[in-house]
Formats: sequence, C-alpha cells, structure tokens
Amino acid sequence: MIEKIWPSPEIVEDLSALRKISPLTHVITNIVVTNWTANVLLAIGASPAMVIAEEEVADFASIASGLIINVGTVTSADAKVMKLAATAANKAGTPWVLDPVAAGALRFRTEVAQELLQQKPSVIRGNASEILALAGTAGGGKGVDSTASSSEALPFAIELSEKLGAVVAVSGEIDYITNGNQTISVPGGHAMMTKVTGIGCSLGALMASFLGIQKDPLRAAVSASAVFAVAGAKAARDSKGTGSFAVAFLDELNLLSL
Amino acid sequence: MIEKIWPSPEIVEDLSALRKISPLTHVITNIVVTNWTANVLLAIGASPAMVIAEEEVADFASIASGLIINVGTVTSADAKVMKLAATAANKAGTPWVLDPVAAGALRFRTEVAQELLQQKPSVIRGNASEILALAGTAGGGKGVDSTASSSEALPFAIELSEKLGAVVAVSGEIDYITNGNQTISVPGGHAMMTKVTGIGCSLGALMASFLGIQKDPLRAAVSASAVFAVAGAKAARDSKGTGSFAVAFLDELNLLSL
Amino acid sequence: MIEKIWPSPEIVEDLSALRKISPLTHVITNIVVTNWTANVLLAIGASPAMVIAEEEVADFASIASGLIINVGTVTSADAKVMKLAATAANKAGTPWVLDPVAAGALRFRTEVAQELLQQKPSVIRGNASEILALAGTAGGGKGVDSTASSSEALPFAIELSEKLGAVVAVSGEIDYITNGNQTISVPGGHAMMTKVTGIGCSLGALMASFLGIQKDPLRAAVSASAVFAVAGAKAARDSKGTGSFAVAFLDELNLLSL
Repeated sequence: MIEKIWPSPEIVEDLSALRKISPLTHVITNIVVTNWTANVLLAIGASPAMVIAEEEVADFASIASGLIINVGTVTSADAKVMKLAATAANKAGTPWVLDPVAAGALRFRTEVAQELLQQKPSVIRGNASEILALAGTAGGGKGVDSTASSSEALPFAIELSEKLGAVVAVSGEIDYITNGNQTISVPGGHAMMTKVTGIGCSLGALMASFLGIQKDPLRAAVSASAVFAVAGAKAARDSKGTGSFAVAFLDELNLLSL
Repeated sequence: MIEKIWPSPEIVEDLSALRKISPLTHVITNIVVTNWTANVLLAIGASPAMVIAEEEVADFASIASGLIINVGTVTSADAKVMKLAATAANKAGTPWVLDPVAAGALRFRTEVAQELLQQKPSVIRGNASEILALAGTAGGGKGVDSTASSSEALPFAIELSEKLGAVVAVSGEIDYITNGNQTISVPGGHAMMTKVTGIGCSLGALMASFLGIQKDPLRAAVSASAVFAVAGAKAARDSKGTGSFAVAFLDELNLLSL
Repeated sequence: MIEKIWPSPEIVEDLSALRKISPLTHVITNIVVTNWTANVLLAIGASPAMVIAEEEVADFASIASGLIINVGTVTSADAKVMKLAATAANKAGTPWVLDPVAAGALRFRTEVAQELLQQKPSVIRGNASEILALAGTAGGGKGVDSTASSSEALPFAIELSEKLGAVVAVSGEIDYITNGNQTISVPGGHAMMTKVTGIGCSLGALMASFLGIQKDPLRAAVSASAVFAVAGAKAARDSKGTGSFAVAFLDELNLLSL
C-alpha cells in the first residue's frame, strides 16, 4: 500500500531542524552539477562542502553529517575516491546517499555503482531506468534520462530495498520512496524540473543533508522530495522558461515555508 | 558570394525536428561551461549527456546522435579521452563538432586540436583567432577572446574548409558558416553574448545537436547559429545586465518560435 | 588604526581602468565556482581565462596580468599544476592571489597552501578561519565556512602580512585588508553573499584582475572588496531569495558606477 503523507507536520519539523542545524554535507558529485548543487543546499540552509581529494575524502566523510556520492561523470580516478569516501562513511556511521546516474546505460559506471552498494548507503536515489538497472532488470535509459516511469519501477525498488536494507527513492512525475515495508508517494513538482540540469542530482544531495538531522532515512528522503515538489510547483508559477525557472526554484527553496 | 538565408523555412523545420526528436548529444567540454551547456541544450529541447570516462566515451560516441569536443581546459588525460571519442565517432559515423578554444594562443591545445582534426569533424566552430590558428595563420588571440574579426578570418575559413572537407563556422559580430563552396552569413545576436561565459562553447554543442537531426552539416551549423542569434537579440531586450541576460537567453531558447 | 577609505576616488579610478584595459586574468580555481567566477569577471569587464593544463600553466601565468590560485577542491595533480603556475608567476613578476579555501579544516590543502606561500603571493584572501590557520593559530572552521569573525582574525592577519610581505584580506561581515603597516576596513555587502556559492572565491579572482591595473596590492584588494560590497548591497534590494540575488549581483557588477 502506498501512503501519501505529504504535506505533514513531520516534514515541517525536518525543514525547520535543517535550517537550525545547517548540517555539514559532504558532496562528491559530477562536474556538471557541482555549482548548482552547492547553491541548492545553501538556498535551503544546509552547509555543502565539495571535498574530492584522495588525501581528504575519508577524513571528511567521517566528520560530515551526511554524504552524497553521484556517479554522473565518474572516471576511474574518481571511482577510487568514491570508494574511500563510502568506506569511511560506512565505518564512521555517517549516513550516505548513492545517486547512480545513468546506471544501466553505460557499463563502467554501473559496475562502480554496484561496488559502492557494498558500503551500505542509507538511501539510493535514481530515476526509474537507473533503479531498474541496479535491481538487475534491463532498464535501458536514454543517456541520463529515464525511459520508464517511476510506477513501473516501484516493485523493483521495493525488492531492491529489501535486498540491500536501504531506502530506495525513485524520482519521476510522482516520486516513490520505500524502505521495503513502507512506501510513500510524493506527487507535485513540475515538468520544468527535468529541463534544468542537476535538479535530480541536487535532490540526492539534499537527502544527504536531511540525513544529518533525521535518523530515519525514509523520512529524510521523503522530506527532501516534498521540499523539492513544493518548491518546483511554486517556481513554475513565476517562470517564463527554464532559465527563470531555475532562478525561481532557488528562491523558493530559500524562502519556503510549508 | 555570401548568402543570407536567415530566417528561412529550413531553420524552422530543423528546430521543430530537434524538439520532436530530442537528439542525444555527447558533450565533452571544458570545466567552465559544462553546466551552462547542459542547460542550453535542455532549454531548446535536445538531450545532453556529459560522458567523459576513458572506459565509456568510445561506446557513447558510437550511440549518440552527435558529439561536441571542446578543448577549452584540456589536460593530457582529457586529450586521450577526446581522441578515443573522436575516433569512435568517426568510425561509427556519428557526426561531430570540434571547438578549438584558444587554439593559437597556447601550444599544447593547438596540437591537441590539430590531432583531433585527423578524425574528420563535420563542423569546426571557433572565433576568428582560433580559425586563423587552425588555418596556419598567426591568429594570436587574447586568452580565449579573439583579436580579429570574423570577416577577416573568412577567406582562411573557406580555405580550411576545402582542405579538411569540413564545415567551418566563424563566430563573431556576424557569424560566417562555409562548406568551401557555399558561405552563409548569420547576423543578429547581441554584444552581451560575449559577456556570459560559454555562449560560444554552447553554440558548438548545439551544432552537434542539430547534426543529430540534419544530415547537411552546413545547414545544421546555420540552424544552430540562427537560433542563437534570434534568442540573443530577444534576450537583450529584457535584460538589465549580463546576469539577467543569461537567464533570459535560456528562457528565449526554451520558448523560441521562429 | 583601521582606516575606512571607502568609497573613494581611487576606487572609482581603478574600476574605470579595469574596464578600459580588461586585464587578462589567469584563473586556477575549484570545480564548484569556475563558471561563476568567469561570469563575475566578465560582468565587471575583466578578461578571465581558466588555463589548467600542466603543459600550459607556466607560459600562461607569465603572460597574464594577474593570477588567482584557489585550493577549494585541490587534488595532488592540481597541486602540482598550481605550484608550476605560482613559480612561473613569481619568476615573471605576475602578481598573484592565494585563496586558501578551508585551510585549517583539512590537512592536505593546508600543506598545499603553505607550500604555495613560498612563491610570494601579492595577496592572500580568506575568511577568518582560513587566515587564522595560515597564521598558525588553530582556526577550525566548519567545512568551507568560518567559525570566527573577521575582527577576531585581524591581529593575526597583520602578523601574517608582516611575516610574508604580502597583503592579507580577511573577508567577513566587515572585510579587513592589511599590508602590515596599513589596515583598511570595507563594510557593506549583504548576508546573502554567504548563501551563493563562490562569492568569496570570485572576490579573490577579482583581486587578481585589479592587480593587473593597480601596482599597489593593498589598493587593488581594497578596490575589489569595495566593488563587491557595493554590488552586494544593491543586489540585495531587488532580490527575492538567493537565486535572484546571484543574478542581480552579476547585473550590478556589470552596471556599477561608483
């Protein structure tokens, strides 16, 4: 059974805690979205830090409140760094999020993502094609875009969640977030969110921020998705096209009161 | 003889096809403009994917509809990856665009660009100084900016086009695009386009997108230039300075009807 | 004694010279802020070039008017390139700025920053925690954010300036810029400047641009800080949140008349 719990007092509470504590979020992401992701996290009130040196990632993953690893433009040198960070996070008990961008479409990153799964991410966030690929189903995908809907991927997301003991979040027209036992749907948002690069990637990063103030990974992932859904819908109202939408989206995250 | 064919029914047709098909465009570009380039291509309706791992570029260049290689911040590791991608594109018949940023001004990248030319790009897009440098004329250039005008570079562009069997596009106050036999001028645009980083770089990427829906590289390059000229002129009307211009430019690309 | 010299005819003169000469500024910065930094420098009228290849940095640092080195996401490969650039700048007499992002918080980058100090930067720009760390005082810092105020760091900044023979600029609610003998405070700006990634980093880059037209490094650093303070305060007036603030900030830099 899919529950709709949004909006809810829990999400309001989580957003308020995030703004108060400003959780230090370790971001290892792709070269396309670093700037955008930092601005998203700053807009809402988190404290992002992009630490990527082999010499630094393990130490920083141990002291951060949460970690996001996104394989969008992963190279073999990056993969080594990501494994160091994930291993350190796992060891230190830092909750972390895996964003397996374009897994299934390209073999190298799919293997990197599969290896990272061994380090027990708290949350895996992807589009339908990516989640299908990690679940071992031929998902396909067109480059970085999904060719399946989030509802098609849901049964596989639940299975994957049970197998890994991690929350799985499938982004799409409706977001589904599941811990295997419980599945929550987050509707809302706007189609324009797929036309600004990095909105999905920054959602994964925001989940890592919420994990810094909320121990339940299902609730942390739902809070992040809900915040994005509300901000996206509001931003679309005041936007002319994708350029002004991106600006309005940051403004809405910055000003959001649920 | 230079023809002015813009605006034309062909360009309207190409833009419509691009939006319908959303060509998968493989982007290997410099670290300054990755985010901007992705947003430009998404705004207009193409499907960009920044795939840069040594393990992935050859496969992806083979399945993409078009490829852009931009040497703006090329390192020796990047150069290796670019050659793999260009070779794969050439072998698979994927049309590709070379953007030789700052060729002539710095030796290493000039050599990388010259080597990439062996892999038969469909289009070479640069400013006057860059095209002069590739044509073997001391172009100079000030960092990444041109010190010559596009009309000065035109004779050399035609010669280069004949020699390489590639379309050569010289960007400037007026853009000239030539296949050696035929030269088309695209006026329009706005001076503010030189004050937002990556506008020229993203034009090269958009040419790669148009090559995914239009087999004639001259026409593909002209369509991309014309779309930019119209969007740039429109965006300048609603802008206060370079910040709001960049936002308006994305909006215009998103909403453009010719 | 701290002097307040802002606004002053000297700053107006420097801004005018910068716009006339458009100094070629060599930028080696972190992957989060490359695009933003380029747009800031273009908006105000400088000419940025992000040259990062091992084969190119020494040549380019020698011909540029100024150089900024920012260690925000430095890796060991980057560190090698930064040392080549700093050494070449020092040898050629190109004035350069060091931005020791998160020095003190992470050991590797602190060591890289300390080594770079041997190459005689004209200006060191950082937040209070970073300057405290370089001065040998345990500054701490939370990731990339300061946990101390600029006035707390000022005595240590003066000491560091005397020791190194370099101008030290401490950014904060009030910026302090000192050459050991003389200390100038620049008030103004807006809290929103800490909520857009890269504003501090691009201030360091702008100091490198001003060094291209103003031989006195104290005055160059003050001019850059004053321009940012004015543009930040103006931008905040027309902004809804951090997204529109970033856009307005670029507009204000572009249109600024002091």
